[in-house]
Amino acid sequence: MKITILGTGPVGQTLAAKLDTIGHAVTIGTRDVSGTLARDAKDPYGNPPYKVWAAEHSQVQLDTMEHAAARGEVIINALAGAGALAGLVLAGEANLAGKIVLDLSNPLDFSKGMPPSLFVSNTDSLGEQIQRRFPEARVVKTLNTVSASLMVDPRQLADGAHSMFVAGNDPDSRRRVAGWLAEWFGWRDVIDLGDITTARGTEMLLPLWLRTWGALNTPMFSFRVVR
Amino acid sequence: MKITILGTGPVGQTLAAKLDTIGHAVTIGTRDVSGTLARDAKDPYGNPPYKVWAAEHSQVQLDTMEHAAARGEVIINALAGAGALAGLVLAGEANLAGKIVLDLSNPLDFSKGMPPSLFVSNTDSLGEQIQRRFPEARVVKTLNTVSASLMVDPRQLADGAHSMFVAGNDPDSRRRVAGWLAEWFGWRDVIDLGDITTARGTEMLLPLWLRTWGALNTPMFSFRVVR
Repeated sequence: MKITILGTGPVGQTLAAKLDTIGHAVTIGTRDVSGTLARDAKDPYGNPPYKVWAAEHSQVQLDTMEHAAARGEVIINALAGAGALAGLVLAGEANLAGKIVLDLSNPLDFSKGMPPSLFVSNTDSLGEQIQRRFPEARVVKTLNTVSASLMVDPRQLADGAHSMFVAGNDPDSRRRVAGWLAEWFGWRDVIDLGDITTARGTEMLLPLWLRTWGALNTPMFSFRVVR
Repeated sequence: MKITILGTGPVGQTLAAKLDTIGHAVTIGTRDVSGTLARDAKDPYGNPPYKVWAAEHSQVQLDTMEHAAARGEVIINALAGAGALAGLVLAGEANLAGKIVLDLSNPLDFSKGMPPSLFVSNTDSLGEQIQRRFPEARVVKTLNTVSASLMVDPRQLADGAHSMFVAGNDPDSRRRVAGWLAEWFGWRDVIDLGDITTARGTEMLLPLWLRTWGALNTPMFSFRVVR
């Protein structure tokens, strides 16, 4: 399948590497192709520059947001929450229309110190903002409740006995995404929460997620819905 | 131990029954003792009136907020979120001072339709509001992430293999509450999140909790932190 990932950070790279490995045609979209390829410095989290990663993943293409989105049959939004809407605007409404858009972004607000708060929550969500801005896209919020490493390899913990959520307005798109999560990555327990307003719940899990990280001193954990 | 529970609803009743059964001297605090005992109608959720429950739990005393709080060595806030601060004011600052106050309330706002949103979240929490209003109390937020039935009997699910959280400013009080959760109810995995600001995380779990209830069609579930 032709899959386009918007965002060149650790989440985008982790997803691209996995999807490339299992045989998909992956394109990564960025605001500035030459700038991304020219960068020599590590990112603020200590990750090597994109070109180091790209040299090891030569089958993954890098292109502008617009060209990358035009190519993809499925779009994955792996942009930072604060830049997600702007990045999707660059991708172009026509290039998202009718397509499933997996929205992995969280509305983290780092402007008020650490840990971050959320810039939208409670009576709205970033997932809803994206769906409203691109009414023809089939937005499905998912994977935003675990670290990148667990997104693509949930069996690292308890042989995958933990839970992932899908939220989106189109039931068929939610079912297809749940199937992809199982097929691509091995997710065994995907809970269909319902329409895109349920993305409020998974985005609002982030404050607990961040504090649990602090308590356990590792991001290698996930929530299982025990029932 | 002398334990006072503020609130006569299903959460207060469930906790009182369990703590009474295991030998504690339990007092329930209410705004209006004679009104609570006179009520004949079921509550809005279909639960029988307090006096029906009280007849089956004759060792549990009912008293005013103030007298009940004065008697307790430990206070449990099982009031609805919207009435929690006002109820604690009636209990009296002096009757809370120096005592551990287990805060079980969630800031649910039913005024904007169902499911409820939160009347405080993100950069503040009800737990913090209570701690600020009663600086001498040792507020520990806990048990607010499961239904009443699971609070007192977590082994109903997966033999108790799911997680509870404690949040509060006093490390010793968090440790004591974690010990009580194990001793009184059988909680096996209590995660110490840290100071009372971490209550934001567990209160903000409620939107996901409510939507998961909708998806599973039962409140008999809990979150396990798999690591």
